[in-house]
Amino acid sequence: MSMFSLLSLLLLCFINTSINHPLDPLSPSEINQITHIVHNHYSKTSTSPSPNYTFHYVDLEEPEKHRVLQWLSSNHPTTRSTTSPLPRLAKAIIRANGATHELVVDLTDSSLISDRVYAGHGYPPLTIKEMTAALELPFKSPQFQHSILSRGLNLSQVSCIPLTTGWFGQAKTKRAVNVVCLYRGGTENIFSRPIEGITMLVDLEAMKMTKYFDRFKAPLPKAEGTRYKSSKQDFKVISDFRAKWAQPKTHGFSIDGHMVKWANWAFHVQFNTRAGVIISTASIFDSEQGKYRSVLYRGHASETFVPYMDPSDGWSFRAYLDIGEYGFGRTASPLEPGLDCPGNAVFLDGYATGADGKPYKIPRVICIFERYTGHAAWRHTESFIKGELITEVRPEVNLVVRIVSTVGNYDYIEDWEFTQSGTIKVGVGLSGILQMKATSYTNIDQITEDVHGTLVAHNTLAIYHDHFITYHLDLDVDGNDNSFVKSKMKTKRVTQPGSTPRKSYWTVVQETMKTEADAKVQLSSEPVDLLVINPNKKTNVGNYVGYRLMHGLSATSLLADDDYPQIRAAYSKWPLWVTRYNQSERWASGFYTDQSHGDDGLAIWSRRNREIENKDIVVWYTVGFHHIPCQEDFPVMPTIRSGFQLRPANFFNHNPMLPPLA
Amino acid sequence: MSMFSLLSLLLLCFINTSINHPLDPLSPSEINQITHIVHNHYSKTSTSPSPNYTFHYVDLEEPEKHRVLQWLSSNHPTTRSTTSPLPRLAKAIIRANGATHELVVDLTDSSLISDRVYAGHGYPPLTIKEMTAALELPFKSPQFQHSILSRGLNLSQVSCIPLTTGWFGQAKTKRAVNVVCLYRGGTENIFSRPIEGITMLVDLEAMKMTKYFDRFKAPLPKAEGTRYKSSKQDFKVISDFRAKWAQPKTHGFSIDGHMVKWANWAFHVQFNTRAGVIISTASIFDSEQGKYRSVLYRGHASETFVPYMDPSDGWSFRAYLDIGEYGFGRTASPLEPGLDCPGNAVFLDGYATGADGKPYKIPRVICIFERYTGHAAWRHTESFIKGELITEVRPEVNLVVRIVSTVGNYDYIEDWEFTQSGTIKVGVGLSGILQMKATSYTNIDQITEDVHGTLVAHNTLAIYHDHFITYHLDLDVDGNDNSFVKSKMKTKRVTQPGSTPRKSYWTVVQETMKTEADAKVQLSSEPVDLLVINPNKKTNVGNYVGYRLMHGLSATSLLADDDYPQIRAAYSKWPLWVTRYNQSERWASGFYTDQSHGDDGLAIWSRRNREIENKDIVVWYTVGFHHIPCQEDFPVMPTIRSGFQLRPANFFNHNPMLPPLA
Repeated sequence: MSMFSLLSLLLLCFINTSINHPLDPLSPSEINQITHIVHNHYSKTSTSPSPNYTFHYVDLEEPEKHRVLQWLSSNHPTTRSTTSPLPRLAKAIIRANGATHELVVDLTDSSLISDRVYAGHGYPPLTIKEMTAALELPFKSPQFQHSILSRGLNLSQVSCIPLTTGWFGQAKTKRAVNVVCLYRGGTENIFSRPIEGITMLVDLEAMKMTKYFDRFKAPLPKAEGTRYKSSKQDFKVISDFRAKWAQPKTHGFSIDGHMVKWANWAFHVQFNTRAGVIISTASIFDSEQGKYRSVLYRGHASETFVPYMDPSDGWSFRAYLDIGEYGFGRTASPLEPGLDCPGNAVFLDGYATGADGKPYKIPRVICIFERYTGHAAWRHTESFIKGELITEVRPEVNLVVRIVSTVGNYDYIEDWEFTQSGTIKVGVGLSGILQMKATSYTNIDQITEDVHGTLVAHNTLAIYHDHFITYHLDLDVDGNDNSFVKSKMKTKRVTQPGSTPRKSYWTVVQETMKTEADAKVQLSSEPVDLLVINPNKKTNVGNYVGYRLMHGLSATSLLADDDYPQIRAAYSKWPLWVTRYNQSERWASGFYTDQSHGDDGLAIWSRRNREIENKDIVVWYTVGFHHIPCQEDFPVMPTIRSGFQLRPANFFNHNPMLPPLA
Repeated sequence: MSMFSLLSLLLLCFINTSINHPLDPLSPSEINQITHIVHNHYSKTSTSPSPNYTFHYVDLEEPEKHRVLQWLSSNHPTTRSTTSPLPRLAKAIIRANGATHELVVDLTDSSLISDRVYAGHGYPPLTIKEMTAALELPFKSPQFQHSILSRGLNLSQVSCIPLTTGWFGQAKTKRAVNVVCLYRGGTENIFSRPIEGITMLVDLEAMKMTKYFDRFKAPLPKAEGTRYKSSKQDFKVISDFRAKWAQPKTHGFSIDGHMVKWANWAFHVQFNTRAGVIISTASIFDSEQGKYRSVLYRGHASETFVPYMDPSDGWSFRAYLDIGEYGFGRTASPLEPGLDCPGNAVFLDGYATGADGKPYKIPRVICIFERYTGHAAWRHTESFIKGELITEVRPEVNLVVRIVSTVGNYDYIEDWEFTQSGTIKVGVGLSGILQMKATSYTNIDQITEDVHGTLVAHNTLAIYHDHFITYHLDLDVDGNDNSFVKSKMKTKRVTQPGSTPRKSYWTVVQETMKTEADAKVQLSSEPVDLLVINPNKKTNVGNYVGYRLMHGLSATSLLADDDYPQIRAAYSKWPLWVTRYNQSERWASGFYTDQSHGDDGLAIWSRRNREIENKDIVVWYTVGFHHIPCQEDFPVMPTIRSGFQLRPANFFNHNPMLPPLA
């Protein structure tokens, strides 16, 4: 028995005692185990000579939903081992000999279940290893050295970034990445000093620069005024922030493995290299029924579409599908205690798989904390009882689960916030640095053409763009089978004159969406409440139990339907979709996003127009931002926030913040 | 010299030294002085025999805007007394002998300037004294006693409430109020136990019940399950709230009289019996220019329209204009320290005038506090500089000015929140108790008619309704003359094939609104940024300085245009208006709101269609809610929040949270 096999045997023993929940993310030892299984497989197979394969994606292959729910409902530690255990499978996407392999392994008996070659369009996410390698290539290129020298710049002050290439109708594609470069020289704010005009294409399989463009020169924007590191506001409000805003030392939640319990909520938190954070099996305790009732089987960011609006060379390809191409988990930043998350936060580490198959840790990748919002959860002053003045106020304390993904220049701050009133608030904050383009202009009076952006500083254009963050929301409102309902407010004219002094009022007309086509809706100013109800469950007075989707102003993609980035993110034309649950349908732009052709994903799946009434359904909601940059966004952006809420609507018999029979 | 005159002389001396800002609210001594002037006036006049007059409204009569601005720009305590002082005037609306008198008094020389009889439609707000008196009348009425007894109820457990009557097309109106009654009997939640079927009309001038209706009986909803007082959630998260969430003992703002300075902000806070809280002369320090620059001359809630959607007897008149009829200031609740506002809050008292002309105090009516939001004001992680990982995070601490107005059953929590990034966030939280109607139904299966509401408990319908809170926003973006601009995002198709792989992009087309009619806009899903710019001021790179109005989902009135409540609140059909500044145009439903006919107010003023380009303009934005109640809103409503933001957009040359030349 080799040392490696012994190790994996030991790991197996460890795994058998440590798995707490069937949706727990892969542990480092499980990742090692997967790598070992794959290694064994390829060392026996002549087709893929070891070690010429790289791991692009490793994730838990989840048990079927009904089995997870079964496990949950009979979740007794004593019986778990005696009843038939749930399978523990994992999926690995591997590139070997220019092909994409989909491997499924069984962690329980350490076996390979399948190795299938994927022959469709698109590629798995780029590995950090190959991106790093691609960024080294320019520095070995005489052409690049010449370009930098000819601009009077110092090569040691150059930083390059990898930009996914997208797909623009080519019949055949090769795995590749665009490389563009930025200049430090007196600032850490590299995005504010683009070395405009140079674009390089790197073939990722050959790891060779295959195209080199140095099309034009533009003045390099100055370093002056771009720094943000260690900057101090010149007013002293928060100079002593950490000491002043010390948070409570104790907290009211418990974390058992990946299960969180707080107030009336219980849910599972999972770090995921693609989605970032995944909330699963969220349920809320009903004090009247004396039990937890399900709300959300799974919720996570599914895709992010960020098209830039400059069609010129070096910019036209900039339309990113961040989650599929880079991964919100792999780009997640270790959170700064006391700054990214308050002093009372608890941090979770995350584990990802390197290109070599080895697990690596992203420390403090998720934080969980109680947040006193400064608002009232509810209040009332009663002054109409003679001789008494009643004021009752309940301050609002929520529970927040936070992750921050920094995809190059942009920082996405994602919050899942649980309230004691039963609401789940999903918030997205955008901060970080704009993507900027060097220009000769120093004043907008000089500009006579469409420059596709805002002049935010001398020689610096911040290009117009959008952010569409699409959420996968597998709601299970008090059970699996749900319906999607529009409660429309309709004006009625009074038809019997004299019956009332009023001439009009509005009333509610409910429409249940029958199929996926019905539920693909634009959110205009039409007055409507959107609800996911359980048509099989009623409250004490007969209302269907439900949750309401409370959205903000919706922004949807303005690109032409036949534009290539739009074809790949076709779903982004509608802010809201409802689909029939299907375990494999999780990633809105399809599973293989890099250089995808738009032949997989939400817009394709829903073409089947499946029935969605009284079925297991999934809601897809997009938080959208159109961003016309302004000078305040320079050199670093004040956070802009948006989001949506899932709020109980006749889910409970009464306000769940009050005890039963108050 | 009488004792009273001596007192007023002393008060005058006091006033001369204490007035700090021309917009300071009337002090108690000034209110006494006004009453004294009015008293002297009416004791000399034979037409209005003392003491048959009542004070309905007393407010500062503000100096002209240009004089206030002049005063501000030369605000040196040493020169103030030597240069010509600003007039200090007040307006008093008095009812005497069945007429409405508008009196203007000069506080500087204690003289009456004018006494004009108002002959138009509508009345000043009801006094608390007459509402209290009206609520006593039922208890002296044998009819009412009989009605209560015949329902098997105990008169000592009855509480009555005054509901404004509205106007339904009558040619002639009399000042009156509707009275309906509620039952305690085991609960403080009187609104949950309406004694349905009884409506009374009280003539306020004669203080007599003039109409009595006992139309039908409905079961009295049970007290069980309605209590909220001293209720404790059965999970322990915030049982030790005050101790656990203790806030910093120190704060970073100063209050000098009514002027607040915090971080880069300076503004004036005024308690006002009608508007609640008024923010004036808000300006922000520009560290690059080394001076304060104006943003908002004045902002406040102007009107609240709350129409209910039940056209039946006893309900059809329920369509309130809360601010004009009752007053957001007069209905403001003393705030609970540590609960309504965090432990670090500073409280301001407010003063109002009683029907007898005497000042009375509303203690702790406004609170001001620093709020750590738990979010990042900005952040960035930079991982593309070799050998370095930079993470910079600035936590967000804002300054909040809060007032809570409880208009009968509903509690409006209004926040003006200032951020260091230059944003003013206006938030409205709705909590309190629903207006409920007793019904025989105990389950919706029994219902075959339109009941105009949600069955939220046995025998309890919560009636459908709206809330429209309209804000008066007199923006002065870096000066008086501003323009209202739409930055529209327009899709462009690429017309030269081959010039780019892209087929489309969007660009920005700016439209400047020329007249009031242009700017009366619906906010649909059309992608547009709304800006108030100063066309006379540019940034360092030539952008017009501006502020952006960032609104949420807009809700506007769905009533028919010719319905009487709609005629009175005609402005509520559009969420956004822009008007030319006019000192007298402040109250969206007109100055005399009670029983108004819709012949004054925003919709009327803007018919003049004045020019608004490069003029002093006022923005009117409505925060709207359509409310289909749900069972969670019973017996007390979890707060629901909405609002809008004024965010700098090319107002600064760069992110104002960074020092100049960072």
